Amino acid sequence: MRLRHKPYAKEKIQEYPHYVVTQEKTIKGNWLSRFNENNPIHIEIGCGKGRFIIEMAKRYPNINFIGIELQTSVIVTALEKQIEEKLPNLQLLQANANELRDYFEDGEVDRIYLTFSDPWPKNRHEKRRLTYKDFLTIYKAILKPEGELHFKTDNQGLFEYSLVSFSQFGTLLKEVYLDLHQTDQENVMTEFEEKFSKKGNRICKAVLTF
Amino acid sequence: MRLRHKPYAKEKIQEYPHYVVTQEKTIKGNWLSRFNENNPIHIEIGCGKGRFIIEMAKRYPNINFIGIELQTSVIVTALEKQIEEKLPNLQLLQANANELRDYFEDGEVDRIYLTFSDPWPKNRHEKRRLTYKDFLTIYKAILKPEGELHFKTDNQGLFEYSLVSFSQFGTLLKEVYLDLHQTDQENVMTEFEEKFSKKGNRICKAVLTF
Ligand SMILES: C[S@@+](CC[C@H](N)C(=O)[O-])C[C@H]1O[C@@H](n2cnc3c(N)ncnc32)[C@H](O)[C@@H]1O
Ligand SMILES: C[S@@+](CC[C@H](N)C(=O)[O-])C[C@H]1O[C@@H](n2cnc3c(N)ncnc32)[C@H](O)[C@@H]1O
Repeated sequence: MRLRHKPYAKEKIQEYPHYVVTQEKTIKGNWLSRFNENNPIHIEIGCGKGRFIIEMAKRYPNINFIGIELQTSVIVTALEKQIEEKLPNLQLLQANANELRDYFEDGEVDRIYLTFSDPWPKNRHEKRRLTYKDFLTIYKAILKPEGELHFKTDNQGLFEYSLVSFSQFGTLLKEVYLDLHQTDQENVMTEFEEKFSKKGNRICKAVLTF
Repeated sequence: MRLRHKPYAKEKIQEYPHYVVTQEKTIKGNWLSRFNENNPIHIEIGCGKGRFIIEMAKRYPNINFIGIELQTSVIVTALEKQIEEKLPNLQLLQANANELRDYFEDGEVDRIYLTFSDPWPKNRHEKRRLTYKDFLTIYKAILKPEGELHFKTDNQGLFEYSLVSFSQFGTLLKEVYLDLHQTDQENVMTEFEEKFSKKGNRICKAVLTF
């Protein structure tokens, strides 16, 4: 994601601690305290500017959503939308996917959305891909036993890599779509999904459990 | 595959018992007796008119190949090519994939090629798909423990279905290609592969162990 330098971003985030968690690791095991309702928790890893997670939160009021994003200058846009929307079932977390076990208790999460993750096409960057086995270990830990990972991408190389990585890790594939938009599956588009599908790229999706 | 009625096919096959096995179940465990060399055995299930298996046999003289096809009127074309080629490392077997355990001892096969299998798109025909779990049980039995299944198809629905079926069965995916012809993988085309790729269909491939 292209980063514009946004010096005000950090400040803005600090102004809205009830919407955005940042480096506050006491939240681990206590996420439900930040929501009104005792509902299942679905998280998106790498939520970018928040289009998907906000639309999901509107569409599914009985799910508690958390949008997670590494970049302060990006998550601030999701925050700005939430300041307008004031969705009671949406929280944001500024954190790195590799430290999610510091923010979530084992089994605290009901579903993970992994959307249009950076593809890192070079072999030597394999470990940075969010479907690399070390990340799968983290997802498995924070998910409930029957919890699902929903993975979407338009990047063919990343999808091929991920299918192999999922299998080698011993996950159980429940659904695969090689051209999601040609199916009748319910689908909320992310920012990148709209951009890349307009270019003609096919959207791939996998649903799996650990 | 469209079947032309070929009354001579059965006769012709009976004339060449050293090239084609048919209903001769004493062959089980004794395939090497039909080859000159004690080499690994690779089989193709649904070999059709034999283009792939014949080309493979020419290219890899140190592998013993067996082309398996249900339809007499189709396998006869493969036989006619073999009558011309006289390849010492190629045998044909007229049989149904569901009875392969009658023709192969457990662990007798080193590799299985499953090429452009009939897609059977209707849900109620799931059991006929050659990647349905009952067929996977057969493949697992006749393959050596490290033996690979190589599956190619242009049919997106069949490929999606098969990836899920493979995972649910507990196989280990080693490689996946969603557009094989755009890679630098070595590849011998089948008849259907040439036809469908010319139409613009992408060729998918999976390699897995049990
Ligand atoms: C290609 S963008 C996709 C954004 C959004 N999911 C979409 O589909 O429009 C990937 C996002 O993941 C974020 N990201 C990359 N690595 C991350 C990590 N280790 N932890 C959290 N977020 C990460 C990036 O900052 C970027 O915003
Ligand atoms: C679509 S054709 C593909 C032929 C060839 N593999 C190719 O790629 O050109 C499928 C072939 O599989 C054969 N077949 C279908 N079901 C079979 C079964 N249960 N056992 C053996 N062969 C089968 C059909 O008769 C047909 O020749």
